[in-house]
Amino acid sequence: MIADPIPLPPMPGQRLARGTARLLRSMDHAVLTEFTPVRGLRVDLISLGPKGELWVVECKSGRADFRADRKWQGYLDWCDRYFWAVDGDFPVDLLPEETGLIHADAFGAAITRMAPEIRLAGARRVKVQRDFARAAALRLQALSDPQAFIAGVS
Amino acid sequence: MIADPIPLPPMPGQRLARGTARLLRSMDHAVLTEFTPVRGLRVDLISLGPKGELWVVECKSGRADFRADRKWQGYLDWCDRYFWAVDGDFPVDLLPEETGLIHADAFGAAITRMAPEIRLAGARRVKVQRDFARAAALRLQALSDPQAFIAGVS
Repeated sequence: MIADPIPLPPMPGQRLARGTARLLRSMDHAVLTEFTPVRGLRVDLISLGPKGELWVVECKSGRADFRADRKWQGYLDWCDRYFWAVDGDFPVDLLPEETGLIHADAFGAAITRMAPEIRLAGARRVKVQRDFARAAALRLQALSDPQAFIAGVS
Repeated sequence: MIADPIPLPPMPGQRLARGTARLLRSMDHAVLTEFTPVRGLRVDLISLGPKGELWVVECKSGRADFRADRKWQGYLDWCDRYFWAVDGDFPVDLLPEETGLIHADAFGAAITRMAPEIRLAGARRVKVQRDFARAAALRLQALSDPQAFIAGVS
């Protein structure tokens, strides 16, 4: 008997993100999607490890998706390690060597090249962890009690 | 026309928690329920304010519920301000004066007595914020991708 299928995320980038998030979870990292560390920058995945490590992962579905990203170098300033997540067909020679590489599909992922560690300064780390915590908790409350977000509640 | 009712939380403590969480949300605090700052201690609500303030709120449905709590003084060590949340019938004379007081129902809440501020030391604040962030993000991922939590995913 075949179990009820869980629907795949519809977009290629979302599939890479799901598999990568599962990998990070298996490494005891807590993962948040679509995080905005600073106005104008939004990362696909940010994870917080058990010792406070902050990793950022950008998911790229193909050459055009990578070429269109003119902001990625800005992400380096908001994490200790930076990775790309791509599928098996992606032309990895495009990717800068000093970044990490994750091969992913919707069901899982593996680290092909560990990213170098460039540790955040203390004040920025505290800010990112605080913003991460607040973003995650606000999303949880929005799911559990949508009315809390209606204007006028006090 | 009457809108479809959103079901009330079934337990009195959960109703207090929902209303209190709405109050905290309106004060720009991000709220997490049922948080364990350290093994053996679980708080009903913890919130993280925009400047990193950490507040803890214990919800008490009545005299017996308060009297049964032998751990509350331990919570003081994990927040900058500590509050009780109770309904309008609660005998507030039972509550220690040096703690905050919130009057709540399922729909909202108000601060009746602000808690004194006893600021956490820096290292503990960083630890609580990190644990808060990780707990919230893990719960979000469990909701969005339950299969990420099945043993063996890697």
